[in-house]
Amino acid sequence: MNKQKFRVGVVGAGGFTGLELLRILSSHSHVEIVYATSNEYQNQKVLELFPQLANPSLKDLLFTKHPQSPHDVPDIDFAFTATPDLASLQLAAMLIAKNIRVIDIAGIFRLKDKDIIQHFYGIAHDQPELLSQAVYGLPEVYREQIQSAALVANPGCYPTSVLLPLFAIREFLTFFDSSIIVDSKSGTSGAGGRKEKESLTFSSVNENFRAYKVEKHQHQPEIQSYLNQFSNHPFSVRFTPHLLPIERGILSTIYLRVKKENKDNFDCKKMVSACQQFAEQEQFIRFYESPNDIDIKKIVRTNFLDFSFVYDETNHIVVMISTIDNLMKGAASQAIQNFNIMIQKNEQEAL
Amino acid sequence: MNKQKFRVGVVGAGGFTGLELLRILSSHSHVEIVYATSNEYQNQKVLELFPQLANPSLKDLLFTKHPQSPHDVPDIDFAFTATPDLASLQLAAMLIAKNIRVIDIAGIFRLKDKDIIQHFYGIAHDQPELLSQAVYGLPEVYREQIQSAALVANPGCYPTSVLLPLFAIREFLTFFDSSIIVDSKSGTSGAGGRKEKESLTFSSVNENFRAYKVEKHQHQPEIQSYLNQFSNHPFSVRFTPHLLPIERGILSTIYLRVKKENKDNFDCKKMVSACQQFAEQEQFIRFYESPNDIDIKKIVRTNFLDFSFVYDETNHIVVMISTIDNLMKGAASQAIQNFNIMIQKNEQEAL
Amino acid sequence: MNKQKFRVGVVGAGGFTGLELLRILSSHSHVEIVYATSNEYQNQKVLELFPQLANPSLKDLLFTKHPQSPHDVPDIDFAFTATPDLASLQLAAMLIAKNIRVIDIAGIFRLKDKDIIQHFYGIAHDQPELLSQAVYGLPEVYREQIQSAALVANPGCYPTSVLLPLFAIREFLTFFDSSIIVDSKSGTSGAGGRKEKESLTFSSVNENFRAYKVEKHQHQPEIQSYLNQFSNHPFSVRFTPHLLPIERGILSTIYLRVKKENKDNFDCKKMVSACQQFAEQEQFIRFYESPNDIDIKKIVRTNFLDFSFVYDETNHIVVMISTIDNLMKGAASQAIQNFNIMIQKNEQEAL
Amino acid sequence: MNKQKFRVGVVGAGGFTGLELLRILSSHSHVEIVYATSNEYQNQKVLELFPQLANPSLKDLLFTKHPQSPHDVPDIDFAFTATPDLASLQLAAMLIAKNIRVIDIAGIFRLKDKDIIQHFYGIAHDQPELLSQAVYGLPEVYREQIQSAALVANPGCYPTSVLLPLFAIREFLTFFDSSIIVDSKSGTSGAGGRKEKESLTFSSVNENFRAYKVEKHQHQPEIQSYLNQFSNHPFSVRFTPHLLPIERGILSTIYLRVKKENKDNFDCKKMVSACQQFAEQEQFIRFYESPNDIDIKKIVRTNFLDFSFVYDETNHIVVMISTIDNLMKGAASQAIQNFNIMIQKNEQEAL
Repeated sequence: MNKQKFRVGVVGAGGFTGLELLRILSSHSHVEIVYATSNEYQNQKVLELFPQLANPSLKDLLFTKHPQSPHDVPDIDFAFTATPDLASLQLAAMLIAKNIRVIDIAGIFRLKDKDIIQHFYGIAHDQPELLSQAVYGLPEVYREQIQSAALVANPGCYPTSVLLPLFAIREFLTFFDSSIIVDSKSGTSGAGGRKEKESLTFSSVNENFRAYKVEKHQHQPEIQSYLNQFSNHPFSVRFTPHLLPIERGILSTIYLRVKKENKDNFDCKKMVSACQQFAEQEQFIRFYESPNDIDIKKIVRTNFLDFSFVYDETNHIVVMISTIDNLMKGAASQAIQNFNIMIQKNEQEAL
Repeated sequence: MNKQKFRVGVVGAGGFTGLELLRILSSHSHVEIVYATSNEYQNQKVLELFPQLANPSLKDLLFTKHPQSPHDVPDIDFAFTATPDLASLQLAAMLIAKNIRVIDIAGIFRLKDKDIIQHFYGIAHDQPELLSQAVYGLPEVYREQIQSAALVANPGCYPTSVLLPLFAIREFLTFFDSSIIVDSKSGTSGAGGRKEKESLTFSSVNENFRAYKVEKHQHQPEIQSYLNQFSNHPFSVRFTPHLLPIERGILSTIYLRVKKENKDNFDCKKMVSACQQFAEQEQFIRFYESPNDIDIKKIVRTNFLDFSFVYDETNHIVVMISTIDNLMKGAASQAIQNFNIMIQKNEQEAL
Repeated sequence: MNKQKFRVGVVGAGGFTGLELLRILSSHSHVEIVYATSNEYQNQKVLELFPQLANPSLKDLLFTKHPQSPHDVPDIDFAFTATPDLASLQLAAMLIAKNIRVIDIAGIFRLKDKDIIQHFYGIAHDQPELLSQAVYGLPEVYREQIQSAALVANPGCYPTSVLLPLFAIREFLTFFDSSIIVDSKSGTSGAGGRKEKESLTFSSVNENFRAYKVEKHQHQPEIQSYLNQFSNHPFSVRFTPHLLPIERGILSTIYLRVKKENKDNFDCKKMVSACQQFAEQEQFIRFYESPNDIDIKKIVRTNFLDFSFVYDETNHIVVMISTIDNLMKGAASQAIQNFNIMIQKNEQEAL
Repeated sequence: MNKQKFRVGVVGAGGFTGLELLRILSSHSHVEIVYATSNEYQNQKVLELFPQLANPSLKDLLFTKHPQSPHDVPDIDFAFTATPDLASLQLAAMLIAKNIRVIDIAGIFRLKDKDIIQHFYGIAHDQPELLSQAVYGLPEVYREQIQSAALVANPGCYPTSVLLPLFAIREFLTFFDSSIIVDSKSGTSGAGGRKEKESLTFSSVNENFRAYKVEKHQHQPEIQSYLNQFSNHPFSVRFTPHLLPIERGILSTIYLRVKKENKDNFDCKKMVSACQQFAEQEQFIRFYESPNDIDIKKIVRTNFLDFSFVYDETNHIVVMISTIDNLMKGAASQAIQNFNIMIQKNEQEAL
């Protein structure tokens, strides 16, 4: 991986995430975009669908159909797959067989347990080898594994917003009750996608707010399994997503209860220090003094995750608030961060 | 209280709540509005400030200054005070001394403990007698006391959204851990008022979302003290308010943890029945099958409170979601509901 | 028409306009709603689809299918038809044959010329007699004819916003060039309807603005033909509609050019007086000193039309600005105003 | 001007335009930002006020006070002044006296006539020499003069949206009546600025729409004077600005009336060709087939101006619609485009 320029393809480039991927990749100094697919917009010019992309390097790029067979795939080094889950499953296998490194933005390679995948995605996963090989692309946690991965499963937007602040306090997690409450709020692009469902019409979203999938959101097992992996502890996550009348951004409010037996020896200041340290080490993580400072506008259109917490001493509850742009750190820009790690260049390139 | 028409005044009528009070009262068959005050808009016509009020009965109403002395107060039977806390404290005393029954929409008569009032409102309460006399105006809970009250302290918007669904399950509350988590989200009219602070400009609220007053919101002790009163149990409430980029509406997500020792004998279906029953008895309470059905648009501009819950069996957590219009059931229309009870007429009149 | 209560049906009650009609009619003292149809929601309770309707009188109302034959129609005095154009054409004929007076909110009975109807609505109008009989339901202009009409064609939202301010200055219209420019801006409920098209998703409307149907909107001939009728002058209207990222409300900016030969004898003050007089006579019309005072929020959820104008003396152009709520004065409440005229009761009843 | 890196300062960097200037300049390959001033935020870190700026090169930049005397100004090659008009007047003089080339984003150097300036800005212009020297920074029109200018007056947002499409059809302008109607709609950042006035609170802007400054907006003479300059024709502009409930973006609807005597020889197709040609020549100008294609979302956060027109043959009116991002092509990015021309590098650099 010593090239200066990598040939890159974006498979499933016609959605919100595709747009952001193309925007970032088009100004990336180690990237040549040579392939963009979209079954829906095939043969259309990329700049016609996405006129807000200013970069002249995209001038002649056309959407082609998704590859039907390995022969359809051009000679590329990397592919980003931003297709629906079932399509990603098949396409990733095809691409990896051709020695193309894949960063998959669908959800199908994130969970390791086929039964849970079947339950939450309704898909029988038929690529057990790829699945076990896939690296969860949360750079701040799994940087090393990502570097050499053939297949990176880019994390979900909600899980990114929850796992990173919890990773910051990983050494303190055993102080808390094993049951964690996550109350998340997301803009519509996180809940839907460019081709929106009826429930995402203007008149149903605007001046409104509601919870959705209260009982079973596919990001619940994703949060839980990676939390348990890095904490080495059996946490159980209560996850409630809500829909905000905005386009981009997720804010998660996380409640951690200090166990009775730890009430006296829980040291809030040490946890503050740990968070500060984490933020100092990690370029895309920022820690604030008060949760009142956390604000979607501060991170929108960036790869930043902002977080903070207070300790409610009466209830012995830590209230942690984090925010990311669901299309950026929750999807496209995190995928580029993973790519930067994989090509062993500056992790901030183009971000 | 056998009159057919009561002479009514609205003191502090120039804000959001004043507008809603005037709107409802102007179509109330037992009300004659004879008095509307606003220091800011004195001598202005009500219909000039509030052109959206269509009722011709308001045609000649002028805002006058708040009464400075008892002599300034005209002959009225009832007054709604929608003034800032300190003004309400003084005005309520003046009005009640004149045998006018008062429904106060400020917060200053809600809490009973003067130290807590001092702490959260920054005001030394100098009307201990009135304070002890004031009835908390949550009709579904304190209907009887309201009927004969001289002074009704109309509840806060967040507390209304939280207390009523918890009252619905009051007989089950002892099953739960004493520490309750309330994650609330409110539109800007709940967080600010008509004369908005700098933090409520369009560019700071629109396409944004954030928590505020995470450590100390004055509605926290209000929720806690009335919850403890009707449950007869020492609950402790963890309350986190957030600001939604919408104008009206509150949605509260409440987390109740079943105590370890009750895990086996907690009967979710019985709690559903209790909620259904409560909704059947109470005309302004509606219970839904799933929290996914709860939606601010369903209740906006009405006096309804909608709620629902699920039982997360893995975490043994009840997730309850409720919604009200903060300016209606959270302020003006609830005040009219209280008024209807006080005059012993149909509780739904004009609502 | 001396009854105290009229039996009323709403045919096509499942949309935005249906909701507003049911809301207003349910508090109308001369109305008993006995019939509400919706092919889409048949057999559903009205209050289930529209939980924001608080009126207990609607408690047992069910949507039934649109009537297929005269036998399906219950015994009613009046019907509001808020169905698509083709359905309205057939239903109105069926209802009127049963001596039911009809207020049609679709567009199919507004224009008189079958060729123009064919061109703009794509429908071959097969009820020439009904068409010639239909009265255009702009109360301030055609009050007398409405009173005795069997069929009222309720005006379009844009035409209402344009025709009424021009009617206010009807005696001055000959001062102006015959070509009039109308630049209108509407919220999404005016451009779409409850079941929105793909182009009205949240992400396409929010934080956006655009013109639509720039070349051929069906309201252009409606504005032009009624303007020419009451002005008795052959005006030609240039109409450009735009889509606002709000739910309700239309604001129209109208440009009238004083003819060269009239520049010296055009008396702006007289025109102001005429507008003031019109507003004094008409309860739902308000005239303001400056166009800067015109504001959608002042009229939303009311039957008011607010307007004002300035005379640009350099360009000899009158700039007139008017605003209405497209679902109210632009649809439902204007229909009730027509109904009030038809039953010869107070024109403001329930509005 | 053969340097590879220029030392650049942003004076008045604490507002919306300052944020965009810093964002673009920080990724500009020929720029080193060495100076950022803000009286309000002096001594604060730039990244604290603007956490959405990701570029690490800004890490240590502090806001200092505006320079009080020439001694306060560091050694820079270029300054962008984004201060209020009066401050810009004084600062530009001070900077230019030090041989610093200035791009002023205030309005005070745009108009040439001191009386008109006095009338619209309320400021007695005391720098006649600078004023006559200032070049109007509309690159597509005045590229050559900009290249060597000491002082560039960056155009207003509305004027940019109007002048460029009219410049595209400059050879056809004599076909039209000399009185032109411009109906413009702008997001709040164009109408206010970061420190918003009371009239720009969330509750007054959200779900609302209105015209403002209908009689006298300072951009009217700006549009008119440059239109007349490049057309060499005495046009008179009727300009009506409106406020959209969105943050960024302007859409202008322009009405041009073909003169009676030209009705037969006006060739619409030739005008289409001229527009296409202009768009081909100019990298930041795009021409679309139909005004229905013009859409704020297509240009937001870019330096593009999109436009289109139709010819209404009945009224002999050309309806032209154009859109820009008021903070970009209407302010910051156009300033950088001017800068790129002044340093004689690639005009698209960093845009």
